[in-house]
Amino acid sequence: MKTMVVISHPTIQTSSSQQFFLATLKGEETVTVRHLDEVWSEAKPHFTRATEEKALLESGAKRLILQFPMYWYQAPAVMKEWIDTVMSKSARFAKQIKELGIVVTLGVKEEAFRAGGKEQFTISELMRPFQALANAMGWKYLPIFEVHQFDYKTEVAKQTLLVEYLQYVTKEHHGTLKNTEDWFIERAQSMKGAEWEQIAEWIKENQDERLELEMHLSDWEESQYGDY
Amino acid sequence: MKTMVVISHPTIQTSSSQQFFLATLKGEETVTVRHLDEVWSEAKPHFTRATEEKALLESGAKRLILQFPMYWYQAPAVMKEWIDTVMSKSARFAKQIKELGIVVTLGVKEEAFRAGGKEQFTISELMRPFQALANAMGWKYLPIFEVHQFDYKTEVAKQTLLVEYLQYVTKEHHGTLKNTEDWFIERAQSMKGAEWEQIAEWIKENQDERLELEMHLSDWEESQYGDY
Repeated sequence: MKTMVVISHPTIQTSSSQQFFLATLKGEETVTVRHLDEVWSEAKPHFTRATEEKALLESGAKRLILQFPMYWYQAPAVMKEWIDTVMSKSARFAKQIKELGIVVTLGVKEEAFRAGGKEQFTISELMRPFQALANAMGWKYLPIFEVHQFDYKTEVAKQTLLVEYLQYVTKEHHGTLKNTEDWFIERAQSMKGAEWEQIAEWIKENQDERLELEMHLSDWEESQYGDY
Repeated sequence: MKTMVVISHPTIQTSSSQQFFLATLKGEETVTVRHLDEVWSEAKPHFTRATEEKALLESGAKRLILQFPMYWYQAPAVMKEWIDTVMSKSARFAKQIKELGIVVTLGVKEEAFRAGGKEQFTISELMRPFQALANAMGWKYLPIFEVHQFDYKTEVAKQTLLVEYLQYVTKEHHGTLKNTEDWFIERAQSMKGAEWEQIAEWIKENQDERLELEMHLSDWEESQYGDY
């Protein structure tokens, strides 16, 4: 799954979460990162439609991920300008892209975003414009990847987030356990060292055992209740 | 009620709806109009916080109206940049403003914006970020003023829209009939000519009659059911 991660963050150098994500993506051959605040030019037009469309086409991305900090319940202005410049239902990249993902970082804690909470609305509600965009473009809208108060997380929580983020960017989102296992096996196999081979082997064995068990259970159910 | 109408529309000169609204507001002493695409400067910073805050304070506005065409289910990038530059819970203008209104023009017909409709979401849902903004700033969020497919409207529909728009911008939003009557009486009285005096008189007489009737009804209800 080839992915393009489009980031808008005016102060990306000092953002610990963005730097953490960038480090995670380093070396991922299937991922193209485009940092808009760098591409943005002072003179108008700040973005050229032709240049942006070319970048999208050349990335070969089927998944487009918009990544940004939430400013006043929306994406930063530069991200919006990019959308206003690039989006077009008839553009060639529009057919190439199949999925839209949102990675949003927030300074406010998760519990605030709910009815009756301090912020009153869920992140899903606040991001509706992006869901409507995916709908209009005929793209699948992925579950939002929310990162709340990154700096307050423990090291272990950050490492877990790293794996989840990498999955969000590169894994097929079929939502099955087998799919996640396959992703882990593939990644472990691509690593060097005996311990990684062993990890891949271990996940594989567990997966085989589990799938066999599932099959037996399914047979047994069928014998009991028929194939309905 | 003093109001500031902040407009973002990159091609305001050729927008028939925006020109229509601007003509409507002409001569309104309680209304300050700020067209962002004119104020925006090519060199960074595109907006100066100090200048924008000064404009808000000098307007004396208690109502802030954000007016824009919907681009990809959000406000244009320039409007977002203004919000990112200006908004601050601790700014002096934040206490002066009491209400936030949204005037949004749309090229798509109203029926598309509903669950199961082409656009899937209501305008209220798509504008949640502005509702969340009002909530965060401690401002009352006014019902959204939606303008669908302005150019397809009949002359009569446009004239009705003109009055509704003027009410949206200048009238107190208590939502009572008396309040709307008072607004009409006040406006008619401020016009020159015998026919306006007569109109004001006519609304006033009707209002008096209606209020008297209401009082009698209330007395009668009390006599029947007690004052519960």
